[in-house]
Amino acid sequence: MSKYWNKLINDIEPYVAGEQPKPGQKVIKLNTNENPYPPSRKVKEALAKINISDLRLYPDTNSTDVIKAAAKFDGVSEENIFCGNGSDEVLAIAFQTFFEKKALTGLPVLMPDYSYSFYPVFSEFYDIRRQTVALREDFRLDPDDYIGVPNCGIVFANPNAPTSRAVAVSDVEKIAKANPDSVVIVDEAYVAFEENYETAVSLINECRNICVIRTLSKAFSLAGIRLGYAVGSAELIEGLRRARDSFNSYPVDRIAQKVAEAALLDVDYYNATRSKIISTRKWFASELENLGFKVPPSSANFLFAKPPVDCGTLYQNLRNKGILVRYFDKPVLNEYLRITVGTDEEMNKLFEVIKQEVKNAENS
Amino acid sequence: MSKYWNKLINDIEPYVAGEQPKPGQKVIKLNTNENPYPPSRKVKEALAKINISDLRLYPDTNSTDVIKAAAKFDGVSEENIFCGNGSDEVLAIAFQTFFEKKALTGLPVLMPDYSYSFYPVFSEFYDIRRQTVALREDFRLDPDDYIGVPNCGIVFANPNAPTSRAVAVSDVEKIAKANPDSVVIVDEAYVAFEENYETAVSLINECRNICVIRTLSKAFSLAGIRLGYAVGSAELIEGLRRARDSFNSYPVDRIAQKVAEAALLDVDYYNATRSKIISTRKWFASELENLGFKVPPSSANFLFAKPPVDCGTLYQNLRNKGILVRYFDKPVLNEYLRITVGTDEEMNKLFEVIKQEVKNAENS
Repeated sequence: MSKYWNKLINDIEPYVAGEQPKPGQKVIKLNTNENPYPPSRKVKEALAKINISDLRLYPDTNSTDVIKAAAKFDGVSEENIFCGNGSDEVLAIAFQTFFEKKALTGLPVLMPDYSYSFYPVFSEFYDIRRQTVALREDFRLDPDDYIGVPNCGIVFANPNAPTSRAVAVSDVEKIAKANPDSVVIVDEAYVAFEENYETAVSLINECRNICVIRTLSKAFSLAGIRLGYAVGSAELIEGLRRARDSFNSYPVDRIAQKVAEAALLDVDYYNATRSKIISTRKWFASELENLGFKVPPSSANFLFAKPPVDCGTLYQNLRNKGILVRYFDKPVLNEYLRITVGTDEEMNKLFEVIKQEVKNAENS
Repeated sequence: MSKYWNKLINDIEPYVAGEQPKPGQKVIKLNTNENPYPPSRKVKEALAKINISDLRLYPDTNSTDVIKAAAKFDGVSEENIFCGNGSDEVLAIAFQTFFEKKALTGLPVLMPDYSYSFYPVFSEFYDIRRQTVALREDFRLDPDDYIGVPNCGIVFANPNAPTSRAVAVSDVEKIAKANPDSVVIVDEAYVAFEENYETAVSLINECRNICVIRTLSKAFSLAGIRLGYAVGSAELIEGLRRARDSFNSYPVDRIAQKVAEAALLDVDYYNATRSKIISTRKWFASELENLGFKVPPSSANFLFAKPPVDCGTLYQNLRNKGILVRYFDKPVLNEYLRITVGTDEEMNKLFEVIKQEVKNAENS
């Protein structure tokens, strides 16, 4: 509390990001869904080519070269892409652009009850009413639950976090078509981690109200660079630019633009990395199931797994042994651990520790 | 207009940044107050040491190493610094944290009538009432004009832009002490460009309500990197962090953090660069005065100069000859050109063109 903060800042409960290890601290870090593999070699080449003198100049406000690379990657036009400083910023700007303030309509933005915990914070921060929609059994999202409910917008992650489950793009289409006056934000941060993945980007010409959010933090191994983008109709993209230019005209720095462009153009490396992660996830999920974990089908680079032992205790014991996973201390979610898929070596170590922990719990 | 944008985005008039030349376009660029000299050599060294593999990991949310370097630079504690993605972002977050929404108090934020044109946009964007306070003769800010006026906060740039004039830190203190319940944002983007400059940072222990905004874009030649920071009491800094964590937990990327830290620690280079700019400004201002320009005393890396000929025509003619300066097409401001101080070579070229233009205008 401070008399110098306004009411919003005094009242809000900010988002809490996953724990970051201290510099030099040796841990197996499986708590913030980072990619265990380094970024493409093209990133190194791009970095070596940076002209230091140019850093004195402002960057391109639109990140045009990144947009070109992203448009090629996603098979859309350049007018369909908006770049920002990480997908959290792009999401925040999208909330500010497409959803209406409480005072004006009173209509809520709809979001799943268990989803990315930044969405409720964005709603508070931008003074938007929200209404949570319950997920069904095993965290399944049912599109019918988003039909016929008055709203000023809809947001969900697909695949969802922390639940790891995906809905079919045909279901996304159903939701968008049933809500033609609302923007439907589809946060595809984790979309790459299914073998033959579908993306709502395929719908943007037919559904002018779909705004897909992408990030280079996960599948491109560039969480350290802060590059996210939105894909949607030119009309939606223009709205996002209007918001950006009312806030920060140069959100993506010169080096990040070069690095992101290089990564987006190296599709072979992208495919190689995500294949490795998918394959690791498969064996690890099946091993956990053998140990008695309940593991909803994951389409992401993490598992949301319910241990056969006390979840909070297991989380703490793993932490004490230098393995960080994510634990949400909230009803229902606190029965599960969210475990990022690391390298095979990391997952083997984790598995050995978990096996021992389960054995100890059973014997105690 | 779009039915998918909310009322705010439909209504707002976004900030318009200075023109950016197209890639490959050869111009003398004196329109966005960039530094004509490259950043410190330490930046190159820092960049060479980047570990590419680490880019897969999120950055430090607080930019701790940058904060350490900035605290050393400014002679304050680490708890007194908040880092963001350029000073525009830091300013935006400060508006969101310290000033109150229209609907709640109705009190305005006070700002000079001629100042950084992003301030009115931030007010609109965050739904804060604003009241402009007229500058006095030759754009002088009089602290008495900020005393006894009900407000929810105060913001001004010191030195001011586009007017180039500074007020004494004792005047800033007077304003802060006369408004103990309001936060006073002092935007010191240009503070380095006076020989023995004073900074409001010296006041932060005595005045808990002063929030100083700094940038690495100007004096550190790093506009391309996007690094700004706030200096103020721990209480103000904590408020800014709460806002950041409700918006984007990782605003400064890994590479920008390394680069910014290196630049902040190279004080000798900082001093050498700003001395050169101050010296160029002095002779250039005096040459313009000899040509009949009216030039208010500048404490910045630019001049705000009133030509003896039609200003809009001169701006266009310079532009046609490949020299970009800034022209604000608004009453009063449209009698002046804002000219960034470049290298001696650039200013000599500009001067020759201006001299010819003035001569042509007089002969026509």
